[in-house]
Amino acid sequence: MNDNNINSTINSNSEQIDLLPQNKNKIFQDKNKFCFGIDAVLLSDFAKIKENENAIDLCSGNGIIPLLMVSKTKTAIFSTLEIQQECVNLAKKSIEINNLENRINVFCCDLKNAFSIFKKNIFDVVTCNPPYIKAAEEIKKDEFTVNAKQIARHEILCNLEDVVKCASNLLKSNGRFYLIHKPFRLNEIFIILSKYNLEPKKMRLIYPYSSSKEPTMVLIEAIKCALPHLTIQNPLIIYDSIGKYTKEVELIYNK
Amino acid sequence: MNDNNINSTINSNSEQIDLLPQNKNKIFQDKNKFCFGIDAVLLSDFAKIKENENAIDLCSGNGIIPLLMVSKTKTAIFSTLEIQQECVNLAKKSIEINNLENRINVFCCDLKNAFSIFKKNIFDVVTCNPPYIKAAEEIKKDEFTVNAKQIARHEILCNLEDVVKCASNLLKSNGRFYLIHKPFRLNEIFIILSKYNLEPKKMRLIYPYSSSKEPTMVLIEAIKCALPHLTIQNPLIIYDSIGKYTKEVELIYNK
Repeated sequence: MNDNNINSTINSNSEQIDLLPQNKNKIFQDKNKFCFGIDAVLLSDFAKIKENENAIDLCSGNGIIPLLMVSKTKTAIFSTLEIQQECVNLAKKSIEINNLENRINVFCCDLKNAFSIFKKNIFDVVTCNPPYIKAAEEIKKDEFTVNAKQIARHEILCNLEDVVKCASNLLKSNGRFYLIHKPFRLNEIFIILSKYNLEPKKMRLIYPYSSSKEPTMVLIEAIKCALPHLTIQNPLIIYDSIGKYTKEVELIYNK
Repeated sequence: MNDNNINSTINSNSEQIDLLPQNKNKIFQDKNKFCFGIDAVLLSDFAKIKENENAIDLCSGNGIIPLLMVSKTKTAIFSTLEIQQECVNLAKKSIEINNLENRINVFCCDLKNAFSIFKKNIFDVVTCNPPYIKAAEEIKKDEFTVNAKQIARHEILCNLEDVVKCASNLLKSNGRFYLIHKPFRLNEIFIILSKYNLEPKKMRLIYPYSSSKEPTMVLIEAIKCALPHLTIQNPLIIYDSIGKYTKEVELIYNK
């Protein structure tokens, strides 16, 4: 979902510059390709980063996660990995306009080839807001007609196992992987995390309303090579009964 | 936890006859060995059973789950499997006093030897409220000093994998397994269910209060050989802000 709680400046036909919540960094977006949603904001808030840590964001799109997280410390260094050149170009422009060239490094690469760029076991933190939905076979077969939005939302160019395998190989032992995904795939997520030695340690379910029958998203922290013990947190509710952000979400947006 | 929301009749030194919520069946309990708690009531409510189905309860203790569930249909047949003879004796007395000999069959057996009694793939439903806590090695080593309560709560005579393996082998294809357990073991639960072809299909987290930071129990429905798709339900809250049962739990007790 797109996030309308921000001010936009129309830059070209479909390109726009938006002001980020929390740190007021500027971000280049393209409504025809990729605009960030509340899931990116909630993942950035959920993910922990310490001074001097080395973090990388997979399926990074226009770099929204590092652009938000960069203000959490003064010294942590972020990398972005994204397969679509047009999204990478947006990320580059955002980094430049915010003078963040010494904090965020941008890479255009298929995450299945990440180790042509990076050494293994070098990151403290991996974040990912991946495509949520399994791609129908007919979409996969005809990649030339697939658009950027479909690639961001559907598992066309990478699937959950590709993401988790890459994250695990990038992380140091005891490194932290932060993922947002769909709750209906939770069992599959846990099994794949386990296959790649990522132990789920924290989990939070996100419900649109306190009265919602089902959560729509799940936040997970998994730690590489950790001992098992999962802390499930209290539900995160997005809207109050009159459709406004709850106090907690309001605080996340205005930290 | 023991459930104090019931009327008790002291029968002998430590034995008592209690009146069950919902169906007002009588149940023999022994406060020194095993008394049912709210977890048994919530699992019995969560578990679905249809007319003419064949169900079995593992780690059945004094038979609380079938004694509650028996009133959900007129024709379903229940079996109980329990390793401790003293608990089995309590179950037998309860079945007799409620005239349920034609609806509930009692077996005293280690679930690791269940197939000396039962054929494989014959049950529509398996329920289990198993020992939640991993047994410390020192307890395991000295079984003669272990008491009935420790056996009911700790994985001394069987562990989670023993339970899930037995449940899967007892179930028909598409049969349903209902489990209540500790949320901090959710990842391990999912991995073991998957190993034995039990696909989690429904899950509900139980929080003591709406303000609780963590859930204390989780209810799971897994279906043998099913396709993956997990429905996570809304949180089940036990107490309201003044410490009384919430309306939903009140309703479960007084159906």
